[in-house]
Amino acid sequence: LLSADEERLALCCSQVQLGFRYESRDHRFTIYVMQLSNCSALCLPADQKMYVRSAVLPCVETTRCLFRTRGSLPQDVVEVNEVFSMQISHSALRQKTLRVDVCNTSKSGHEECLAGAQISLADVSCSEDRCTKWYNLLSRAYLREINKD
Amino acid sequence: LLSADEERLALCCSQVQLGFRYESRDHRFTIYVMQLSNCSALCLPADQKMYVRSAVLPCVETTRCLFRTRGSLPQDVVEVNEVFSMQISHSALRQKTLRVDVCNTSKSGHEECLAGAQISLADVSCSEDRCTKWYNLLSRAYLREINKD
Repeated sequence: LLSADEERLALCCSQVQLGFRYESRDHRFTIYVMQLSNCSALCLPADQKMYVRSAVLPCVETTRCLFRTRGSLPQDVVEVNEVFSMQISHSALRQKTLRVDVCNTSKSGHEECLAGAQISLADVSCSEDRCTKWYNLLSRAYLREINKD
Repeated sequence: LLSADEERLALCCSQVQLGFRYESRDHRFTIYVMQLSNCSALCLPADQKMYVRSAVLPCVETTRCLFRTRGSLPQDVVEVNEVFSMQISHSALRQKTLRVDVCNTSKSGHEECLAGAQISLADVSCSEDRCTKWYNLLSRAYLREINKD
């Protein structure tokens, strides 16, 4: 049933593999940015380093909630394996949303977000073990398109 | 452990209740926009109707993938209960991302998205029964804030 467009798109979706863990004893939320796949779909400039920015939002000034991985030149599959933690109560965490964006730095030094995933933390469990999942990355271009609609 | 800010925020998160269903026999994906809660957190102008816009992205021209509910004046809890369906293969659906945004129409007639949720459909199941969940709505203001960072 796949139309030609769907076929082309079907091979095209880039993804990020993330892990989450909440340790209630220490009130600590940990984000594991593990891997990126199918990054060629993002059509990134080959000579510019890319990195993953994670933000736990809304961000209250007193807590650190914005995390960036080291930069690396774009490849189809990128092993990231970086870990970030923050102190937060479980009730506050369940009001938050995690934004995970693939970014690079433009010639003018500005942070450009190219594609991202947004994960509601409304039902993040308190079970201490890490849950790992792949998430589709939605290119910003598609969002701009429907907002012009 | 909740700081004063976290406490204020904790009461402040607006949410949307959504249901999803994929019927493999008819290649049909159905979205149930059920309810909004805690909309006062969105600080919507009381005299302007709001509605929920759902978009299955990336959107291929041949298929209808943008759906809007009827408008209603803002209240804290809004019963929506509207259902939208689209034809799509399961393999194509798993490459998509669902954007669900609370919108209103500005004085100049432009569609303004105020807050939204973004759901990766990478692991949407093929199990025919409807799965229902609450998702936190992230206000656009918080996204603009970190993109200025």
